[in-house]
Amino acid sequence: MKKILIAGGDMRNKYCSEKLSAVYSVKHINSDEEIESEEKFDCLVLPVPPLNENKMIPAPCSDSELEPEKIKELLKPDAIIFAGKTDDTLRNMFSGFKIFDYMDNEALSLKNAIPTAEGAVQIALEELPVTLNGSKILITGMGRIGTSLIEILKGFGADITVAVRNAKGTANARIHGVKSICTKCIQSDYDIVFNTVPDMIFNRELLCRFDKKTLFIDLASKPGGIDFAAALELGMKVIWALGLPGKTAPITSGEIIAETITEILSETEENANG
Amino acid sequence: MKKILIAGGDMRNKYCSEKLSAVYSVKHINSDEEIESEEKFDCLVLPVPPLNENKMIPAPCSDSELEPEKIKELLKPDAIIFAGKTDDTLRNMFSGFKIFDYMDNEALSLKNAIPTAEGAVQIALEELPVTLNGSKILITGMGRIGTSLIEILKGFGADITVAVRNAKGTANARIHGVKSICTKCIQSDYDIVFNTVPDMIFNRELLCRFDKKTLFIDLASKPGGIDFAAALELGMKVIWALGLPGKTAPITSGEIIAETITEILSETEENANG
Amino acid sequence: MKKILIAGGDMRNKYCSEKLSAVYSVKHINSDEEIESEEKFDCLVLPVPPLNENKMIPAPCSDSELEPEKIKELLKPDAIIFAGKTDDTLRNMFSGFKIFDYMDNEALSLKNAIPTAEGAVQIALEELPVTLNGSKILITGMGRIGTSLIEILKGFGADITVAVRNAKGTANARIHGVKSICTKCIQSDYDIVFNTVPDMIFNRELLCRFDKKTLFIDLASKPGGIDFAAALELGMKVIWALGLPGKTAPITSGEIIAETITEILSETEENANG
Amino acid sequence: MKKILIAGGDMRNKYCSEKLSAVYSVKHINSDEEIESEEKFDCLVLPVPPLNENKMIPAPCSDSELEPEKIKELLKPDAIIFAGKTDDTLRNMFSGFKIFDYMDNEALSLKNAIPTAEGAVQIALEELPVTLNGSKILITGMGRIGTSLIEILKGFGADITVAVRNAKGTANARIHGVKSICTKCIQSDYDIVFNTVPDMIFNRELLCRFDKKTLFIDLASKPGGIDFAAALELGMKVIWALGLPGKTAPITSGEIIAETITEILSETEENANG
Repeated sequence: MKKILIAGGDMRNKYCSEKLSAVYSVKHINSDEEIESEEKFDCLVLPVPPLNENKMIPAPCSDSELEPEKIKELLKPDAIIFAGKTDDTLRNMFSGFKIFDYMDNEALSLKNAIPTAEGAVQIALEELPVTLNGSKILITGMGRIGTSLIEILKGFGADITVAVRNAKGTANARIHGVKSICTKCIQSDYDIVFNTVPDMIFNRELLCRFDKKTLFIDLASKPGGIDFAAALELGMKVIWALGLPGKTAPITSGEIIAETITEILSETEENANG
Repeated sequence: MKKILIAGGDMRNKYCSEKLSAVYSVKHINSDEEIESEEKFDCLVLPVPPLNENKMIPAPCSDSELEPEKIKELLKPDAIIFAGKTDDTLRNMFSGFKIFDYMDNEALSLKNAIPTAEGAVQIALEELPVTLNGSKILITGMGRIGTSLIEILKGFGADITVAVRNAKGTANARIHGVKSICTKCIQSDYDIVFNTVPDMIFNRELLCRFDKKTLFIDLASKPGGIDFAAALELGMKVIWALGLPGKTAPITSGEIIAETITEILSETEENANG
Repeated sequence: MKKILIAGGDMRNKYCSEKLSAVYSVKHINSDEEIESEEKFDCLVLPVPPLNENKMIPAPCSDSELEPEKIKELLKPDAIIFAGKTDDTLRNMFSGFKIFDYMDNEALSLKNAIPTAEGAVQIALEELPVTLNGSKILITGMGRIGTSLIEILKGFGADITVAVRNAKGTANARIHGVKSICTKCIQSDYDIVFNTVPDMIFNRELLCRFDKKTLFIDLASKPGGIDFAAALELGMKVIWALGLPGKTAPITSGEIIAETITEILSETEENANG
Repeated sequence: MKKILIAGGDMRNKYCSEKLSAVYSVKHINSDEEIESEEKFDCLVLPVPPLNENKMIPAPCSDSELEPEKIKELLKPDAIIFAGKTDDTLRNMFSGFKIFDYMDNEALSLKNAIPTAEGAVQIALEELPVTLNGSKILITGMGRIGTSLIEILKGFGADITVAVRNAKGTANARIHGVKSICTKCIQSDYDIVFNTVPDMIFNRELLCRFDKKTLFIDLASKPGGIDFAAALELGMKVIWALGLPGKTAPITSGEIIAETITEILSETEENANG
């Protein structure tokens, strides 16, 4: 049975640890004091991101941080490392080890679409003084998050339009039973706009055409799809909602990370055996 | 054109006033200073509830309250009064006038089911550390609020069961594409329970069988359907969510009141003419 | 264990018999030859309708018919009789016995709404040269069949409007996430009209305003809601679809009858014991 | 204004012609007699497939066929040809002309997913003696047809499972609110199986495990995903449903072809101008 070390991290790592415990021998440490040097581990799971500004592993659950070098000593020479949003600093620190960035995993991204969409809908419910039922909603993009939003918002009885780039987008919107509009021809009479496209769609010129009451929720990773500076100047209501899965559904989010690690480990073993 | 006076009230009354202005001559006052004695009105709209503990009309938007007697002097002798959750004190104060309790209106109750259900879902999103997608949810009752919850939660991809009383309830659940269970045979393995039935279903005995992680949201009017004292003792997580429409969707809620008043006035006129 | 005799009937009675066999001792006969006189039964289940024009019990599965008098001799004096669409002829024939018309049972009607709606959608799919996706559809009424149609047609991505009588209908349409229109203001630009209301809504005057391409499917029991004579003269495409459950889903339909009989028998026993 | 010649074809080509007429100068001919030699065309639209076994253009609406060589003489030297399911015979006949196979167009395939799924559901409604509501349904694949089926069948209240290949498939199923199972672990207790995957999934061994009552509907193009020979021997109920869009929704199908041609022509022009 593989021995897995989980080092630091927020509630997600706690739930990830619980889920992995069903299959592996798991130890979760949140401070350097918990280290017992005699043990050696096959895998290390680090948080998202794995290092804070002090180049330490963050452990917010114990208001603490962990020393990467000490953690490294606990690993077997052929150990596998899982971390989210890895960078060169981390890769240099742990050079020689096989490192997987679980946030780059396509299945994880697909699974995270659901907590992201639910978190976005929660924001809309909290911010909007009208019901989603009957609201005019624009969603840009029909990727995983856009599709997840459509499925949820149809249940609310919202009046949904998807902004698409081409005839394939139009066809995909029809399959999902919603209206579509060409991204270039976006109208401005919406109660909410959910942006899921990481391109600058809502520039100053387009923002000017919208009513101040419209709520913009940007779900696209940097640089997002809304000109924030312009929106601020124009007095628009814009929320840039990043990292929603960990905030709104830490258990689900931790379990998704655990599932992803389990799948990668299974594939690795199959490849080794096959 | 009928002249309508709106006295006090929260954001709902403000939006109700705006909506009524499209059809009627409307004046909304929030303090005794705004009273101009020469005007006389055909209708008076009071808030929910119409009187506070000082027997004054609450006007929270101006941190003030209004004197009912002064308001009464502004009414024509045959004026119609609309108020929510009227009681004998109000009826005595305004004896001689025709009083409609708009909260007793069946169409208003049906319309309020949507903001109530959306508010309940918002609470669930805020409180639950897992996604609604895949969650096991129990809804008691298939009245207007239960039905509204079902429609919304289907979109989330939740695993929904409705507790029903009889074969008609079972059939109604099938029409809406969800599973049903007899109220007497309620199981206890749910992530969330939404109660919409104003009968004591979740007594101490039944609550004992539930996991502490289950979130109970009671939407039934007094006395509700959950034994709160027992739930408190048992350490259960219970939220008694009343008056959601005004809190979560004041614009929609105010517009629903305005629609209801407009319909009652139209019917009254038709009857007068017919 | 109660002994139940099923006499004649179509495929529904066959499946009803199979379902009842799980709980009761059941004998299903389809011709007079199958009668064995020594047995006496607690219950008799007759088809819908129970008698043909010869005043015999129809048994189409054996191209035969059964003599009611012979069947009567097989019953215990306190036997209960279940039949669909009973009339005075039947009640006179079996006077002295307790007779339940299962087609009058409210739970059965609710359950039959689903096979009725599915049958109606099948007709629409067969008749229409366009997809239901994107089609403009009018449904009159939000009773059980109307609601069932709405749930199904939303999945197709149809553009649904419900014709309602009052503000309660409007509110109910909103809960189900569809548009509504006042019955008096019905527009005429629909691809399909499903009528579920047993009142004459589509009279000659209204029909005249519709395009010849519109498909009318009338699901209301006699006299229906469409002026058929006028529709014929005007060259409209009208289908009067009655008895759909038995035609399109005989197994489900037979099982619904069996469930209804089981429930009535349970209640009867409870009342007898209680 | 571009001059378009539509030669032969079934109802789809008729409706394609009507739709194109809104934008172009269109002539639709169904027999050699209708040819007027003085006209020369910019585009030619041929049916699916463009040639019958006699190497003639089929024109079933006039019980006739057209001579390709005569049609060719009507084209300008730089004319563009649109045809469905083109082969070498056609390409040789019309060598020198630019030929587009509209059936290879990705947007058309996406759009055709809807009439295909609706046609498949129609078959299920016609064949099944139970309601889709409550039926256990397996769909293999979550491509465009699988997704379209899921959206429709959710509305029916069916109990849907999708067979998927990997964790991404599982995640996509969750987004759409349905259960999933690994293709290798398919169970056998389904009322209906819709296959949309063009791989041999349902081989003799797997088919053996299914009940004879299960209805198989194969929507995958040749060679399909079901071992038909084995299914026949085993007495399974299998329907291989190809070309559904043209059969069940000829107007929609013709309009989709017209839209595709319009888009290709616009892009061609833009490229020429740009």
